[in-house]
Formats: sequence, C-alpha cells, structure tokens
Amino acid sequence: MPEQRAATRGPVRIVGTGLLGASIGMALRDLGVDVVLHDPSRTTVLLARDVGAGRLATPQDTDVRLVVVAAPPDVTPDVVLAELAAHPGAVVTDVASVKSAVLDALRAAGADLSRYVGSHPMAGSERSGPTAARPDLFAGRPWVVVGSGTSGGDAVRVVRDLANDLRATPVMLDARAHDDAVALVSHVPQIAASLVAARLCDADPAALDLAGQGLRDVTRVAASDPALWTSILAANAGAVNPVLRALRADLDGVIAALDEAAAAAGSESVASGALGTVASAIAAGNVGVSRIPGKHGGVRRAYDVVTVLVPDAPGELARLLADVGAAGINLEELALEHAPRQPVGLAAISVLRGLRGRLEDELTARGWRFAG
Amino acid sequence: MPEQRAATRGPVRIVGTGLLGASIGMALRDLGVDVVLHDPSRTTVLLARDVGAGRLATPQDTDVRLVVVAAPPDVTPDVVLAELAAHPGAVVTDVASVKSAVLDALRAAGADLSRYVGSHPMAGSERSGPTAARPDLFAGRPWVVVGSGTSGGDAVRVVRDLANDLRATPVMLDARAHDDAVALVSHVPQIAASLVAARLCDADPAALDLAGQGLRDVTRVAASDPALWTSILAANAGAVNPVLRALRADLDGVIAALDEAAAAAGSESVASGALGTVASAIAAGNVGVSRIPGKHGGVRRAYDVVTVLVPDAPGELARLLADVGAAGINLEELALEHAPRQPVGLAAISVLRGLRGRLEDELTARGWRFAG
Repeated sequence: MPEQRAATRGPVRIVGTGLLGASIGMALRDLGVDVVLHDPSRTTVLLARDVGAGRLATPQDTDVRLVVVAAPPDVTPDVVLAELAAHPGAVVTDVASVKSAVLDALRAAGADLSRYVGSHPMAGSERSGPTAARPDLFAGRPWVVVGSGTSGGDAVRVVRDLANDLRATPVMLDARAHDDAVALVSHVPQIAASLVAARLCDADPAALDLAGQGLRDVTRVAASDPALWTSILAANAGAVNPVLRALRADLDGVIAALDEAAAAAGSESVASGALGTVASAIAAGNVGVSRIPGKHGGVRRAYDVVTVLVPDAPGELARLLADVGAAGINLEELALEHAPRQPVGLAAISVLRGLRGRLEDELTARGWRFAG
Repeated sequence: MPEQRAATRGPVRIVGTGLLGASIGMALRDLGVDVVLHDPSRTTVLLARDVGAGRLATPQDTDVRLVVVAAPPDVTPDVVLAELAAHPGAVVTDVASVKSAVLDALRAAGADLSRYVGSHPMAGSERSGPTAARPDLFAGRPWVVVGSGTSGGDAVRVVRDLANDLRATPVMLDARAHDDAVALVSHVPQIAASLVAARLCDADPAALDLAGQGLRDVTRVAASDPALWTSILAANAGAVNPVLRALRADLDGVIAALDEAAAAAGSESVASGALGTVASAIAAGNVGVSRIPGKHGGVRRAYDVVTVLVPDAPGELARLLADVGAAGINLEELALEHAPRQPVGLAAISVLRGLRGRLEDELTARGWRFAG
C-alpha cells in the first residue's frame, strides 16, 4: 500500500485488540504512526502484535496522544473512565456500536468529557479477533463521530483525522441519532434474522433441502456471536424496542389477515381487506428496500440493467467491460452471477436509464449474448 | 450453450410467460424442444417470444404433449382445469409455490387427476416478468414434484423428465409436506424481510447511509412483487401462520427482555434472566442457520472475498479484472457498489478458498488498494 502522511500523531494507545482494535493498529502502523497495544487477554494482545498492529504497552508509555477503546459495549464506559484518568493529556475515543449508553454512563461518573469523543466505524467481518484484522477494514466505510456535546473541538478533530487516516468517511451524528439509526439498519435486522433462523432448529431436513438464496440471505447474519449481540442489544434496548414494537404490530396484522384467508380457503371469497393488509405489508417492504443506498436499493430504480452471458474463462469479463467502455457508456453497477454447472456467468450491468438499447446494440455488434 | 438430448417431447405449451414460464421456455428451446406460448397479456407473451422462450400458440397447436401452467396460485386451479379439458392427450403440470390449495380446488372441481402432476421449481428472483427470464434459472435447484395420489406413473415421469431436462433436481414430496417446507424456508423469511424493510420507509436518509451488507442481505427479497406474494401467502396461510405465531412468541420474549434491560439501564444490574432470553434467541439463530445445507450463508462462506477500491472512472473496473486474470486467478463472483459519498467503487471479488493472499499480493503489486 502506498505511504501517505497521517494527520494522526502517536503514540496511539489501543485498548482491546480484537478485530477492530487490531485493524486500527495495523492501519496506523502502515502510516508510520507509533501504536501501543493493551488487552486484558495476554494471548489476544500478543496475537495483535504479531499481526503488526503495534507494540506492547509499557509503563514508560506516558505520552499517549490518543486512546482508542475497542471493547464490548458493556465494559466500554469503565475502560474509557480508566483511560481518561491514566492519560490526562490524551483524547479518548471508543468504537462501541452503541453510543448513548456509553455517554450516559460517563456523564453519571463525572468523566472529563472535553477529552472524550465517541465513535463507531461501520465496518466489521464475520470473523473476529486479531487474526481477522485488516489494515483496510475501514476504507470506504462510514465512521460515525459522536461529540459528547462538551467535547473539545480539538478532540473531535483528532477523531475525524483518525477516521480519515483509515480512509473511512467521517459522519457526524449525535448519540441518540446514531443509536436510532443502528437500531433500524443493524440491530432490528439482526434480531429478525435470528428469529427466522431459530425456526429452522427443528425443521425436517427435507424442508431445509428446499432452501434457496433468499433464506440464506435473510439468515446470514444469524451466525453472529450471541454474547457480543446480547451486550449490544441490551445497551441499545431503548432505541431497538420501539422499532421491534412497530414490527410486531405489522406482524400481528399479517397474522390476522392470513387467519382470515385460511378461514376463507375453499370458499370463493377472501375478504379483500385481509388480502389488502398482506399486499400493503409487502408493498411497504418494496418502498423500504428501495431506499437503501447501493445495489440492492435505490439504484435498481435509477438504472436499466442489461444481463450478458460471459464465458467462464479468465479475461472474458475484462473484455466485456472493455467493450462497455469502448461503447462510451459508463457502467454504474455490476453484479456477476456464477451459473451452477454452466460454462457461463451472467453479468448484470446497470447503466443510466435510456442507455440500455444502445448498450445492447454495441455489445451485440461485438458478439455478446444476453440473458433476460 | 452445448446441445444435449431432451427427454421432454414437444410441443410443450406454456401458459403464463412471466419469469418462470419464459425461463422454462428458453431452457426447452435451447434443447431443441418445440414450445408454444400463451399468456392473457399480449405484451407479456410477445416479450417472452422475443427473449426466445418459444413461439406464439395458434389454434393449430392441438397435439400438445405437456402443458406447463405458470400462473399465480389463485388462478392456477381454473387454468389447470381449462388446459386439462382443452388438451385431453396432454399431461398438465403447474409451478405454483403452493400445492395443497391447488390440488384441493382441482379435486373439488372433479378434475381428471390422472393427467395432472403439481410441481414447484425452487428457483426465482426478486425480479419478475419475461425480461428477467434465464434458461439456467433452474440449474442445480430442487424441483418439487407432487403426485396427486391418483396421478398416472407416466404423468409423473413426464414432469420428472422436465425437471431433469432443465438441470434441476426432482424432489418427490406430498402437497402438505411441500407447503409446510416452503412456509418455513421461503414464505416466513419473505414476510420477515418485508416487515424489516417496511421499517425503513420513514427512516432518516442519514440513518440509511449507515446501511451495510447485513441489512442489504436481510431485506433483498423484500423487493418481491406484492400481488404475487399476496396470492402465495393467502393460499398457504394454514402452513405459514403456525410458524409466524412461533416467531411472534420469540419476538415477544425479546421485546420483554429488552424492556427489562432498558429499565435497568444505568443501574449496575440487568436481571440475568433478561439477558439470557436475548442470548438464547441469538444462539438459537446460530443453530438454525447452521442447519441450512449447501453454501451456508451464501457465497461469502463458499469463497474468500477480496474487496478492492476502484476509482469511479470508465475502464478502471476492466483494468482491475484484467489484472485479476493476469494473476491467473479465476474470479468466481463479483459485486460492485459505490461507497457512500466517495468517488470510488467497492469491488467484492470472490475467489476459491486459499487464493485470497495470492490475489491480494498480485493486486497490491499492481497498485490496487483494498477495503474491508
């Protein structure tokens, strides 16, 4: 990775050297920043050192400029308090995925909030621990920065600089707005995925053999760590429960409507009100998913999609995209599906509305075939 | 696509030329089978013809051997009855996602069930219509074949041959077992995804900017067609609602536990019973998702994924894929999306397990940078 100047000045002390802490350390080391590591687990901190996240902290490391607390949410406040006391000249941040609970606990403890700035990098991995750490874990991801309200401007700048140094995109939010946002886009989806997956525990294997990509996608995050998620959900319960209650109200409506439909089965008429309730729930889902930025969301409505058959051989996809470029058409999004037992892939190319016909003409002229 | 002998003998009449009907037609045409198309919508049938699903049906097409009814579940019984009457020498099958309701309606109407065999190819897409059709839609997927109990052995064989010709895997199930299975692996996950996505309708855009792959995966199928899904869910309400009720009971438990956690916030002790309920729900999800066979969790689990930062400029993605090809590494899957508020795209490249390190080395040597 090319060297670049870091705005962050060391020594940076990282407390908690799991996936996030070790990844931050590796990224800062790549930028030439001095990083000292601490973790309650000797094994974890040694592993973090060995993957290049930094050096082991010593009693001589008293001139720390920035402390990054990367601990589970339930222990984060106590660790932040201890670090504020132990390093009176340092800015202290944490990367816990809930922010109000941490801030409230610090306020209740009378912490010096002028030197504390909470943050939450929206990055992670299905793997955990320092061996899963990557210096580029945060590149291109949002990094929420939460001033305490009394945070010093310099302290906020230090944390924004950290996010920028790690090639993340700093997003300023207050604690409440952050917690409401992650309840909606992360915590409630996690619970829904876990509850759907839990229904499979006693399922007939013959039923599970019918599982498709839909079920796999809905339940993928259900593989997440129960201890960590219990800590996250408990700490954000105040923001999560209103969303869960609204979801349950919709679920009650669907169950009642389907009861009505089941009762009417065989007869000619299902009360249109019942079907209307079900259709409205699915239609509301259409609207909601279309608002998600990125390839599964709004983009689908903004772009035309051309699906091209691509021979499954090295260089073929590159040739296709070179042809798209040669046609002078900008490719907005691309998704390649590997067709099972087929010597071809399917490349779904998204282009701006109105360019589909021209793209198909250009690609046809260059010998490409389309699916769909 | 390589020619191969088809066990299915034409003419095959396809009634309903949306995603499934048109995909079946395209696959049979690729095998050289004569396919005639009918759809109540003139536009839909012409589109299906234009994508290569077959030729338009004419009054002269009286020698049909197999009729495939690919209509919504609520109209399927009437269409099957009409086709049985119109083509007394033909086997008639349908591909509706529910089987008991269809079979019960046919029995009630006194249909000749010796020539009827219900089926359900476990394939689809959140996209719909003939323009989304793919000849390989069924390859490697289960294709449930449901004898009526009085279905003739020859009729069952004809439908099994159809599934095999489309490179699907025939699975014999009775109607009830099929309906219970799809309620669990398809219908309830669809409802959960829609309800989670519906929560996003009024979300602050700043919250949606924090969305990650987890939310995208959980809600992907929420983009599905409300009219079709209303028909499916109403027709399978008897099998869906017991699963929904069990899910709601679990949801109630989580909500109550999080209420307890919220009430205890700030205090030192959250009743361990409350946290235990949450942890158990997440842990049960771990068990359930681990029981899904095959590429459990989707391609992310089957492949190593390397996410590369791609400058948002024409030709850059082609250059990246050319470099991947030059590295002699076969790209298994690829997904590109734009990083929020960044002039770069994120290209997630899936390669066979064990090739990640080498790919990263090769791409790093060519000046590429990686995102987490």
